[in-house]
Amino acid sequence: MLSPVMLDRYALPPMKDLWTLDAQYQGWLAVELAALRALEELGHVPSGATQAVRAGAKIDSGRIQTLEQEVGHDLVAFLWALEEEIGPEGRWLHFGLTSSDVKDTALALTLVQALDLVIGKASRLGEALGELAQRHREAPILGRTHGRWAEPTTFGLKVLAWYDELKRVADRLRRAREGIAVGKLSGAVGTYAYFPPEAEERALTSLGLRPCPVATQVIARDRHAEVLFALASAASLVEKIALEVRHLSRSEVGEVEEGRPEGSSAMPHKRNPILSERLTGLARLVRASLGPALEDNALWHERDMSHSSVERVLFPQCFTLVDYMLDRAEGLVRGLKVFPDRMLARVAEARGVPFSEGLLLALVRNGMARREAHGLVARLSAQAERESRDFAEVARDDPEVRTRLSREELDAVFDLRRALRHVDVPFGRVLGEEAGYNAHGGHDA
Amino acid sequence: MLSPVMLDRYALPPMKDLWTLDAQYQGWLAVELAALRALEELGHVPSGATQAVRAGAKIDSGRIQTLEQEVGHDLVAFLWALEEEIGPEGRWLHFGLTSSDVKDTALALTLVQALDLVIGKASRLGEALGELAQRHREAPILGRTHGRWAEPTTFGLKVLAWYDELKRVADRLRRAREGIAVGKLSGAVGTYAYFPPEAEERALTSLGLRPCPVATQVIARDRHAEVLFALASAASLVEKIALEVRHLSRSEVGEVEEGRPEGSSAMPHKRNPILSERLTGLARLVRASLGPALEDNALWHERDMSHSSVERVLFPQCFTLVDYMLDRAEGLVRGLKVFPDRMLARVAEARGVPFSEGLLLALVRNGMARREAHGLVARLSAQAERESRDFAEVARDDPEVRTRLSREELDAVFDLRRALRHVDVPFGRVLGEEAGYNAHGGHDA
Amino acid sequence: MLSPVMLDRYALPPMKDLWTLDAQYQGWLAVELAALRALEELGHVPSGATQAVRAGAKIDSGRIQTLEQEVGHDLVAFLWALEEEIGPEGRWLHFGLTSSDVKDTALALTLVQALDLVIGKASRLGEALGELAQRHREAPILGRTHGRWAEPTTFGLKVLAWYDELKRVADRLRRAREGIAVGKLSGAVGTYAYFPPEAEERALTSLGLRPCPVATQVIARDRHAEVLFALASAASLVEKIALEVRHLSRSEVGEVEEGRPEGSSAMPHKRNPILSERLTGLARLVRASLGPALEDNALWHERDMSHSSVERVLFPQCFTLVDYMLDRAEGLVRGLKVFPDRMLARVAEARGVPFSEGLLLALVRNGMARREAHGLVARLSAQAERESRDFAEVARDDPEVRTRLSREELDAVFDLRRALRHVDVPFGRVLGEEAGYNAHGGHDA
Amino acid sequence: MLSPVMLDRYALPPMKDLWTLDAQYQGWLAVELAALRALEELGHVPSGATQAVRAGAKIDSGRIQTLEQEVGHDLVAFLWALEEEIGPEGRWLHFGLTSSDVKDTALALTLVQALDLVIGKASRLGEALGELAQRHREAPILGRTHGRWAEPTTFGLKVLAWYDELKRVADRLRRAREGIAVGKLSGAVGTYAYFPPEAEERALTSLGLRPCPVATQVIARDRHAEVLFALASAASLVEKIALEVRHLSRSEVGEVEEGRPEGSSAMPHKRNPILSERLTGLARLVRASLGPALEDNALWHERDMSHSSVERVLFPQCFTLVDYMLDRAEGLVRGLKVFPDRMLARVAEARGVPFSEGLLLALVRNGMARREAHGLVARLSAQAERESRDFAEVARDDPEVRTRLSREELDAVFDLRRALRHVDVPFGRVLGEEAGYNAHGGHDA
Repeated sequence: MLSPVMLDRYALPPMKDLWTLDAQYQGWLAVELAALRALEELGHVPSGATQAVRAGAKIDSGRIQTLEQEVGHDLVAFLWALEEEIGPEGRWLHFGLTSSDVKDTALALTLVQALDLVIGKASRLGEALGELAQRHREAPILGRTHGRWAEPTTFGLKVLAWYDELKRVADRLRRAREGIAVGKLSGAVGTYAYFPPEAEERALTSLGLRPCPVATQVIARDRHAEVLFALASAASLVEKIALEVRHLSRSEVGEVEEGRPEGSSAMPHKRNPILSERLTGLARLVRASLGPALEDNALWHERDMSHSSVERVLFPQCFTLVDYMLDRAEGLVRGLKVFPDRMLARVAEARGVPFSEGLLLALVRNGMARREAHGLVARLSAQAERESRDFAEVARDDPEVRTRLSREELDAVFDLRRALRHVDVPFGRVLGEEAGYNAHGGHDA
Repeated sequence: MLSPVMLDRYALPPMKDLWTLDAQYQGWLAVELAALRALEELGHVPSGATQAVRAGAKIDSGRIQTLEQEVGHDLVAFLWALEEEIGPEGRWLHFGLTSSDVKDTALALTLVQALDLVIGKASRLGEALGELAQRHREAPILGRTHGRWAEPTTFGLKVLAWYDELKRVADRLRRAREGIAVGKLSGAVGTYAYFPPEAEERALTSLGLRPCPVATQVIARDRHAEVLFALASAASLVEKIALEVRHLSRSEVGEVEEGRPEGSSAMPHKRNPILSERLTGLARLVRASLGPALEDNALWHERDMSHSSVERVLFPQCFTLVDYMLDRAEGLVRGLKVFPDRMLARVAEARGVPFSEGLLLALVRNGMARREAHGLVARLSAQAERESRDFAEVARDDPEVRTRLSREELDAVFDLRRALRHVDVPFGRVLGEEAGYNAHGGHDA
Repeated sequence: MLSPVMLDRYALPPMKDLWTLDAQYQGWLAVELAALRALEELGHVPSGATQAVRAGAKIDSGRIQTLEQEVGHDLVAFLWALEEEIGPEGRWLHFGLTSSDVKDTALALTLVQALDLVIGKASRLGEALGELAQRHREAPILGRTHGRWAEPTTFGLKVLAWYDELKRVADRLRRAREGIAVGKLSGAVGTYAYFPPEAEERALTSLGLRPCPVATQVIARDRHAEVLFALASAASLVEKIALEVRHLSRSEVGEVEEGRPEGSSAMPHKRNPILSERLTGLARLVRASLGPALEDNALWHERDMSHSSVERVLFPQCFTLVDYMLDRAEGLVRGLKVFPDRMLARVAEARGVPFSEGLLLALVRNGMARREAHGLVARLSAQAERESRDFAEVARDDPEVRTRLSREELDAVFDLRRALRHVDVPFGRVLGEEAGYNAHGGHDA
Repeated sequence: MLSPVMLDRYALPPMKDLWTLDAQYQGWLAVELAALRALEELGHVPSGATQAVRAGAKIDSGRIQTLEQEVGHDLVAFLWALEEEIGPEGRWLHFGLTSSDVKDTALALTLVQALDLVIGKASRLGEALGELAQRHREAPILGRTHGRWAEPTTFGLKVLAWYDELKRVADRLRRAREGIAVGKLSGAVGTYAYFPPEAEERALTSLGLRPCPVATQVIARDRHAEVLFALASAASLVEKIALEVRHLSRSEVGEVEEGRPEGSSAMPHKRNPILSERLTGLARLVRASLGPALEDNALWHERDMSHSSVERVLFPQCFTLVDYMLDRAEGLVRGLKVFPDRMLARVAEARGVPFSEGLLLALVRNGMARREAHGLVARLSAQAERESRDFAEVARDDPEVRTRLSREELDAVFDLRRALRHVDVPFGRVLGEEAGYNAHGGHDA
């Protein structure tokens, strides 16, 4: 058994049930039956053939695999095994079809189901993010750029950005689903030589798919690559969330903690954000699928089979991983311990230095050249840090600043509420609330 | 000068002009001016500031680069150089903005322009493909799967599949354009602390962009990754076309030839499809951008700068290459020498063996078990190949076949026109013509 | 069960047995015991502790996994389960170690074993290639560049190039093995705070590993990336062989055939080189591992856990696939049907055109400017092709050629044996035979 | 001009001079002349031909490019331009060679030179790392795993691990150089049909290269892929260093600072580690080259040209970037501001909690079951953190601990010097000093 050390660890039902051998055979049979029924309804095969085939068709995995050893072709083995069960009427099975008609159409059915599961998971993650964003909409936290303290923001705003990105991810997933919800029953080289277009349309419609407008032996693989890009895009968002959790969980930061951090075998004091680390790693695997996925697109002539082994590995793997990632990301978000007090304490700890831009702009507004003001503020903020003093105080003590700015102007510079007065705007845009920023009015910058 | 051995070879105007240093500075200035005008219109800066800045702003690349050596920050150097030109009113430049407001918004403008160029090229390639498909709609050619002769198809049908894929590529490009046509002027950590949302909306609208609903210091990089995926998808289609041209240009096949094949320095007789080979290689480069593009998405907190050097290389490179690829692909398609006579001669050369499925199905229809019929037809076709005889003749000579099938039934099996009777259907679906397949009716399979 | 549709198809014993959960636990136990014995031998733990632990240690996978659900840490669960079995003496287990000491060292053991299996497979493929090369050392075949007929070569020479590349692949595998044959038992951050260096050296030596000269919590991942590069290099060679088989198996070429080509469900006449196609696809998967493998190298501080989930998937996958690829490539090479008659017939079919360089050089030697000669020969060879005449005859009929070249000189140009007179040289270099080319002497070019 | 926004920013002499068009032509000429001289020395061309060609050969880039427009083949254009300069004797140029003989051999020469530059840079980075490691060999710093405080280590030990990895990187670079220091002058399909092996050996030896044992039209691309892997491995180490600098430069950590951090256009107080961030990004670009590099290996038959455009972009790009990365990494390391006092202060700030493993092991040694001890120590350390008390004190107050451990045993647990007593061992192993750990002796764990 190969799997335990590997993917099984990350495989959750019902996603994992889509990728079993049995599910594959069931999918093939569904396509064969739909095709046959369409032929029968259009009068291309004798009346009753479909019923006879459906009644007799029993999938015996063991028998199929035995025959596959003999004949070296999985779908041929599948057909022979069925024919053995069904008897003479079994000859109508696969009538006018080629293997890829069945396999590509069945794969599309599976991909649609798998995408639906992923879209559902994404939706639940979205709910969790929306709630978390709302809960901490006003919670001040130091913004950090380049790993260094920047201006204050709110924790809710961080989460809102993920929520907004998730909307784009969900769009990509839905468009990929739209793109892959196609089947083909047009025969060996896509000419409908032995299977009429009307029957294709009828059969595919019954399966919930559209006919591929044109195909070779196979459905074009650019559609499949788009599915994997949509998955990679989902994985990338999960990575982004996980990375932020890891950063805010650092011992020196301590502003959030995973709901269930992991201990260490050696150091009993440890509480490690290992779920977030794991999610970070899994994103690497998912994005690595894009190279092979795109290599699969340019096949020889009407098709070569090089894409097949790639897909056999990549699709179960990427869907399993992204399903797991979205699931666990939702758990991470719902279970996250958030410490607004520590966030606020750290804003205080910065002693006003994050407001340096406000001071710069106030000086500019009052006539100082920008370059000069930039130099002055940089000097004063460095002094504040060096001397561990409040930046506001250092600024107040500076004669140049005092000349330029009134006490009220200086106080406004260091007003945290003022700095955060517009956070409702992005919330309004993203969550569809009334933006409200018109209500604020006044002198804004 | 680094470039000649490299990308310059593949850089075409006007695309390449979008990626010069000068174009970058012009883009930054456009954003700064739009932002300032919006502030002025909303009363946040003194009336006349925009006019003063615009009048004085002169881009002196040399001066900027000198200052950059000094200050180590490209946008700060840009501002200082402008301030030197403009004088005191220059202090209003960049008021309330952070570097990323300017850079990300200007980048979005460039990406939109670049996507428009690419979309235009894609459209011209589409025209060329549509014409080629129509011209050879009925031209029989052997289908080939796994590099081996399969059933006949038409050359036009091959081309139609590319045309259809191009429609999806164009959709992806347009959606990527939609996704990236956003700017942000929300300041250092996206809170609008010093630049009001109304001014952002006004300024971006004037630039033809939408405001990003929510941002950190930067616009989220999932949007940029989608742009690169759309480009990779275009490159992948070009690769697919090029691969088919290379295969059909093989000496043993000789069914098409590049319009201007290349000779050899050693072997004067050679005519090599090197354009197609070059396009094949370039697709590898473009798809390799997706790993870095996705790695760029998960940045630290409100942003780290690791994405910046990546984008500095990837965007010019991928746009330049895809622009080139689409351009040359159009030339390849328009100039392609197609030899329908050789295609038809090869169908004849196959001596009826490609119709093996027809024989199989006729036998099945007349009561033979599929597996038995498969074995019989495989045996007879191998015999035909071994003895270099017409498959129809070998089949006719077989007693089992003769028992099962009438002369008329057998003739129908080997009827090329019959095999291709449905090619109008995909043409109708893809090119929007009346499908026409209802008109055929009758016994289809 | 996730696997059947996926990797199980490609998993061969004994490789696949290395990657089971049970094998993982056995590896961990081996490391724990070696560490404990070393401590005991050096007097750091009471005499008899190792014996007590070994005697009691029984791996109960079910119990471990139950505990893992509880504690959320696989190695802690493993230790607890063992401690339950062993009783009080079990407390000496893991003494002074951190999880990564055990996991990284056990992983190194597994990687060494897996590399040994792969090296063995590579060696068997090498034998098969050497034999095939020797067998067809002199068999003329048209060389093809850009898919177009070039000068003749021999089939053996093609194979020899693979043999030569395999030597480099084997070198890379051996160097990767050398690089990964290291363990670490230096504790939580690599300082030997609780496990002395002498004990590490003793324990690792007993396991057949060297101590890592310096480590953090983990062994540096550049070593692991090198292992994957070596595997990708092996996969790339298999892809190269498979690609050539596919090309030479084309219906139009027909110079080789897979030993057991696959049929088609629809077209009974087909014999498809699907093994080669499958190998082509699998190479895509293996090379895609390099991105994640290199992303795993730069971890946070003394380590973060992001590499762990990546490796859990990549190592079993890539080793399984490369083991399979080398195994099947050997089968492909040994079973390959080679048709030297058809190869030779095709040389004849080219009617002398491939000798155009010889004619060019003969003209140059006799005083004609190269550019002029190039033009003349290109013209004559095109004429030969157009008129389906022997190139030698067309050349002979040309007045300019007749003026420049004697009958003997012209005959020499079209002498196949002469063109291939040096093939023993590369054979000598690669297979270590006497080069023999000195024996030929004479006027060479 | 395409480059300024792109690679020029990262291109340093003399590396960038290797990749100009002019350098390419000079390399081609050097190969042509070496080949001709060898032919002449062996009597295959008239005496004096080489001298005549060398005397007349003048590279006129403009003329070459004009001819290339006409003939569509860069090397043919190069030859024609030279022939125009040289006159009749120019016909001996390229005698018996094919374009790839010249291009691949010249590329090998360039790659060897470029690798030598990179190896030199790596060596200088190694010196800088060695000095930094030695300087801070004993400087205590909190180890951090999973971003959380672990046991103490020394800053020098962190750096030593980079130094050790650099040795492996340098090995890879040297092996790649060994692998690529091969040329080929064996003609159109590698058969030496018109260029004798003796001449190849002679010519290549004069250029400092070995003959490729066997070749097709080209040198096998697995060698080139290995070069790129070696570069990616170097880039990965630089990324690792840069990542650590970024983490230790965080505002909350502040234990190191880049020598010249960058300011912000908006926030005058900022000092951002942007060099490290840039290096992080560039590593993404370099590792992305491995996909295309490996795709280039499996070419059609004796070669197709798909690798050519890829290499035209990848080689200049990756060498330029890695040269820049190593150069700047050396500067980063040499200029790094290290704050040992802050490192030590943070160890104190942890109030003994990082010694939890020591307490655990002391309890185990004194008879407590490991699982029980783990639970107790976890509880006590959590209490210490919650109550902001010294962990030693909390432990001392615990009755169970007091029963098990003497005052001396407890003091030893919290002894920082004891925890770091073995750091000389890895230094000895890596820097080749006497290991010295035997000198310590005594009870180690």
